Amino acid sequence: MELIKQEVSQERWIDIPEEVFDIYRLWRPSPLFRARRLEKALDTPAKIYYKYEGVSPAGSHKPNTAIPQAYYNMKEGVKRLTTETGAGQWGSSLALACNYFGIECKVYMVKISYQQKPYRRLMMQTWGASVVASPSDQTDAGRRILEKDPNCLGSLGIAISEAVEEAAKRDDTKYALGSVLNHVLIHQSVIGLEAKRQMEMAGDYPDIVIGCVGGGSNFAGLAFPFIQDKMQGKALRAVAVEPAACPTITRGLYAYDFGDTAQMTPLMAMFTLGHDFMPAGIHAGGLRYHGMAPLLSHLVKLGQIEGKAVHQLEVFDAAVKFARSEGIIPAPESAHAIRAAIDEALLAKDAGQQKTILFNLSGHGHFDMVSYDAYFSGKLQDYALPQEEIDRAEAVLKDYPATE
Amino acid sequence: MELIKQEVSQERWIDIPEEVFDIYRLWRPSPLFRARRLEKALDTPAKIYYKYEGVSPAGSHKPNTAIPQAYYNMKEGVKRLTTETGAGQWGSSLALACNYFGIECKVYMVKISYQQKPYRRLMMQTWGASVVASPSDQTDAGRRILEKDPNCLGSLGIAISEAVEEAAKRDDTKYALGSVLNHVLIHQSVIGLEAKRQMEMAGDYPDIVIGCVGGGSNFAGLAFPFIQDKMQGKALRAVAVEPAACPTITRGLYAYDFGDTAQMTPLMAMFTLGHDFMPAGIHAGGLRYHGMAPLLSHLVKLGQIEGKAVHQLEVFDAAVKFARSEGIIPAPESAHAIRAAIDEALLAKDAGQQKTILFNLSGHGHFDMVSYDAYFSGKLQDYALPQEEIDRAEAVLKDYPATE
Repeated sequence: MELIKQEVSQERWIDIPEEVFDIYRLWRPSPLFRARRLEKALDTPAKIYYKYEGVSPAGSHKPNTAIPQAYYNMKEGVKRLTTETGAGQWGSSLALACNYFGIECKVYMVKISYQQKPYRRLMMQTWGASVVASPSDQTDAGRRILEKDPNCLGSLGIAISEAVEEAAKRDDTKYALGSVLNHVLIHQSVIGLEAKRQMEMAGDYPDIVIGCVGGGSNFAGLAFPFIQDKMQGKALRAVAVEPAACPTITRGLYAYDFGDTAQMTPLMAMFTLGHDFMPAGIHAGGLRYHGMAPLLSHLVKLGQIEGKAVHQLEVFDAAVKFARSEGIIPAPESAHAIRAAIDEALLAKDAGQQKTILFNLSGHGHFDMVSYDAYFSGKLQDYALPQEEIDRAEAVLKDYPATE
Repeated sequence: MELIKQEVSQERWIDIPEEVFDIYRLWRPSPLFRARRLEKALDTPAKIYYKYEGVSPAGSHKPNTAIPQAYYNMKEGVKRLTTETGAGQWGSSLALACNYFGIECKVYMVKISYQQKPYRRLMMQTWGASVVASPSDQTDAGRRILEKDPNCLGSLGIAISEAVEEAAKRDDTKYALGSVLNHVLIHQSVIGLEAKRQMEMAGDYPDIVIGCVGGGSNFAGLAFPFIQDKMQGKALRAVAVEPAACPTITRGLYAYDFGDTAQMTPLMAMFTLGHDFMPAGIHAGGLRYHGMAPLLSHLVKLGQIEGKAVHQLEVFDAAVKFARSEGIIPAPESAHAIRAAIDEALLAKDAGQQKTILFNLSGHGHFDMVSYDAYFSGKLQDYALPQEEIDRAEAVLKDYPATE
């Protein structure tokens, strides 16, 4: 109930409960670094800062919302949470959070990931969560799909349906979501609030704020507190970076659409490629989502945020450049932000301008080394979305209410 | 040359060069945590603190010495470094360090690890190192072994021989070692020096200092600065925790022995199970070493340090208990220290005593999830070294000079 209240809250500030702070302080405030070695490698006059969220036990920004979500559920007597996970970033974060508050956690993990990415699954199990390969025989939705295709490898859409069905059927169980929604973005804003204070300590303020976007939560977490200044007249660019294979902001439609494939959520006004969109199998699993957080989409419409699409090969090139200058091996998702930051730094160099760039390094790549292997061995390819996919989305979405 | 000088130095203090500090500050000072949730889970009156070295880009304490080793080599014009690695902690740390200073890095990785642990290999490649499966056809030592047994899966001893041979044959190349030696222990003492300052900030001082031991460097790094106080009369216990499958301190002999299987190093007075000892394949690869750092061994002889051997199943039990209370998933090596810390906390509980325990959490377990899998699925077994192995070591060592 508290999370629903936050979802629709008009308050400017919502306090972080002491019990949540108590856990946050295991890794928060997360560090803000100046990437001096990267600046030197690029020979740029630009100053590059990054906020590093990989220091959480789960290795990304996701616990920032998993912890309060588990906390409020615990306070209201919820004994079990279900959720879905693809690559496993969100599932592992919720497993961690539930474990802190003595809540049972059940994760429906897309079967192909369950089989191919055992490490994140083992992480969840280490924190006491039960992990089921989806589609499973534990729900109607799962059984229906298995009947049709016993070898189905699953999808995020199916896993959501299973997790939601279980929560709907059991009184002691609720469902938790790791991105897109307003309350998730609110929880993530701790990133930007800290970054503002840290930039102040460094005697600096960004000209450009950059983050990668899947559902939008890590970007919003960093950028929204700065955009607050921008809306009051401060000069600032906010750049949301997405894969060219899943270009929700740069090529998607602003329309009412469902958040999930199975059409179980309410309609939301957002940038979308259509709820039936099936993204290519790029190596940044966390960015393969058809929609975009409504709050973030709204700010794009208002001209406060610009979108930028980048290709996978140039992203890994940036990831390796970053690892070889700064040391930290980034998650492929976060490397989208690095790519854009490097591009801006090189533009500044060409223009002979002193720009200050701040990006969100949302997670480390310790569980993504297989992607690096694919990159090093030349197996990765770029993929640009064909126009037919946009036409298809238009056809799907034309029957829903108009957005303006 | 500077490292050799440090190896035999009589100075109490050796300054950390500014260029090394510049890199250290990416993760140093490493955090000191009070494990309040673990204390609560154990219902103990003991206070448990841990120093967390997993925050380095390579995920362990190893960069503390890799960075200065690469730095001094760079200063003296060395262009290439070779080394060996088993599970990959040391190899990846040296790859990281060499990358910072523009030194080429070549790592001979034990073939079975090269095949079974591709993630650490990929980490080294990401940082620009070249990694070769050992035995290889690039050295005489490797070729000799492959002639006899083309399917040989390698050993640390063979990998050392290959790395040393290459360094000996090339003028531009030196060999680097990640534990055991005096200069390595000196570099690691930054851990304990920071911990002392941090304990002071917390208004506390440990009754017991605990670390796991393979070659001994992470334990020495934490404990030596405290043992300095102990030698001046301060009450303190220092506990070095080793696997029961490789019980160098608790059951080994104090004798002159070689540091490597191939007998290429000078003889060192130390606790040892014999240079030809082949440890069981336990899941804490970093602790499978036949010898023990001479400085540490000497302090055991002086009664300043006590050894403790623990079994693998109780170690993983402690690892999971720790992950479920504190959040961080520990490396199996570091979990040996956790086991001992928990045991001491439970003893304090039984005795109704208020003890202060400090242990070194030397690394995270992100690249060891396969070991957790083996534990969860009941595939791990305990293994205690049979007496014949000790008898064998005695027979091997009896011809070397006596130690006292």
